[in-house]
Amino acid sequence: MGDQLIGIDLGGTSCKFALVTVDGQILHQWAIPTRIEDKGQHIVSDMIQSIKEEFSRKNFDLGKVIGIGMGSPGQIDRKNRTVIGAYNLNWQELQLLGQQFEEAFHLPFFMDNDANVAALGERWLGAGNQSDNMIFVTLGTGVGSGLVTDGHLLHGVRGSAGEAGHITVERDKAFACTCGKKGCLETVASATGIVNLAKRALQETSASFADPHLLACGNDFTAKDIFDAAKSGDRLAEEVIDEFADYLGLALSHLANTLNPEIVVIGGGVSKAGNYLLEKLKPAYEKNLFPQVLESSTLKLAQLGNDAGVIGAAALVLTEFVQKEAE
Amino acid sequence: MGDQLIGIDLGGTSCKFALVTVDGQILHQWAIPTRIEDKGQHIVSDMIQSIKEEFSRKNFDLGKVIGIGMGSPGQIDRKNRTVIGAYNLNWQELQLLGQQFEEAFHLPFFMDNDANVAALGERWLGAGNQSDNMIFVTLGTGVGSGLVTDGHLLHGVRGSAGEAGHITVERDKAFACTCGKKGCLETVASATGIVNLAKRALQETSASFADPHLLACGNDFTAKDIFDAAKSGDRLAEEVIDEFADYLGLALSHLANTLNPEIVVIGGGVSKAGNYLLEKLKPAYEKNLFPQVLESSTLKLAQLGNDAGVIGAAALVLTEFVQKEAE
Repeated sequence: MGDQLIGIDLGGTSCKFALVTVDGQILHQWAIPTRIEDKGQHIVSDMIQSIKEEFSRKNFDLGKVIGIGMGSPGQIDRKNRTVIGAYNLNWQELQLLGQQFEEAFHLPFFMDNDANVAALGERWLGAGNQSDNMIFVTLGTGVGSGLVTDGHLLHGVRGSAGEAGHITVERDKAFACTCGKKGCLETVASATGIVNLAKRALQETSASFADPHLLACGNDFTAKDIFDAAKSGDRLAEEVIDEFADYLGLALSHLANTLNPEIVVIGGGVSKAGNYLLEKLKPAYEKNLFPQVLESSTLKLAQLGNDAGVIGAAALVLTEFVQKEAE
Repeated sequence: MGDQLIGIDLGGTSCKFALVTVDGQILHQWAIPTRIEDKGQHIVSDMIQSIKEEFSRKNFDLGKVIGIGMGSPGQIDRKNRTVIGAYNLNWQELQLLGQQFEEAFHLPFFMDNDANVAALGERWLGAGNQSDNMIFVTLGTGVGSGLVTDGHLLHGVRGSAGEAGHITVERDKAFACTCGKKGCLETVASATGIVNLAKRALQETSASFADPHLLACGNDFTAKDIFDAAKSGDRLAEEVIDEFADYLGLALSHLANTLNPEIVVIGGGVSKAGNYLLEKLKPAYEKNLFPQVLESSTLKLAQLGNDAGVIGAAALVLTEFVQKEAE
């Protein structure tokens, strides 16, 4: 039996690959552009061809590979290894990924959604420290999460476990969410959400930003601009970040009081704000934790950045093998 | 191999027993008082003796029993089958239940906390409908929960998963909770919590209750009194129940957006308010659900009442056997 795993992180812009040993050694990483034209019909064959070419070019041996794991956007049927409704890939119809990959490689193929796979990546080789009880929350354009409890990645009855972005945190003056409801965490704690909070703060107060860069942006600032200004001492920007941290801390406390995690990992683009984010977030999170949950829980920044997806996709093969053998 | 299970529900007042077949047929149920005197040192030997006597009296055959399961208050070490800090049993020191039961019966012995065990009971033979994704929330003196996701009862790193009673739901005018923090669900959604809300409503408004029974209670009313008055059309009582339902619905939505359950079961003494409770709760719950979570989730009242504990304790033997064999 081999000791290598292929991980694939399928995204709307690029498709990333990694060849990883079962011990977590990354042997090789590469990427190709995602060709979403023609209803995304080239995507799967491009991925298959790229693996074959790269293995040939680098003299790798497919015989050493145990299986292939993939993180994908869209609605995933994990059992049948299909995807539907991945709109950033132009995949509106059902895509039979499992069948295509197994025909091409005669290797077991597993898939899960991108947040779950990234959680497995951080758990295996990143901030999750191989804990059986860890939560990964990713703050990007939206807010997603992957939840590992008692060693199991949680899915729920329709695979929607971990919809942390849609936990209600604002009840009075709540922003409308793309999901159709109001006051979702995503409307105040994603990159877009931080901009929402900043624009509302500008409207509601007579104060304005003092930071010269932020002023120069006019109405066209980003979450990073707000974070940078807050770090430089801009008072209104800091108030916006405090509000963001308060909501995020509250939602994380809900997850933690529910799941009693050992480690809570914050990833995604917004987490690049680094220790400043963590310092703001910690008190807001901890004040809402049940004492026993507080004692056993640590809040950490993600460590793998964009590699969490490919590494987690490789980890998925390990996880699924272990689980399948156990069932 | 046998086909019978013994379930024990250990409480501060009484200790309930059930003999159940693996098919869920209840062969016999009985109970004894819990003797908490002398630091609770008689409790375990009383239970062991009662099982022996009852089996002898009824001509049951211990050879047909697969294992013994128990739900207990206090902090439980599931692996070592010990309890500490069960103050309503006067158990302040470590109790070696697993050892004592195994020495007495030479049968596998499993234990878990009372809310988890009640969840397994409702899942097996009650409103949980044997679903692999169900949440049980019990509203009594406090608020507890047992969470089953993807077929697993969740525990977390220190066994504190499911501390639903300590999810923060009130942020402004928050009651202090016995746990040390503020605004916990338990302070507004337990039997005590509903009384808290009613007393605050009386203080904050010039209105008073109109219901004659409630007026006669003076300041000494119960959650049931409030529910009864609300059902009879007392306006202030109905406002109190609306507020309770709003907080409970919010907290349940946090659990559901996190775990994507198929069935959410409401049990405990407060759930005796029946369909009126469910009708108040449903809109408050559903408006906070992510659409895919809403589509797949049903809110139900518990069906087993006080028997959930013993039945769930018996179910624990099944669950642990299946899980142990799988690991």
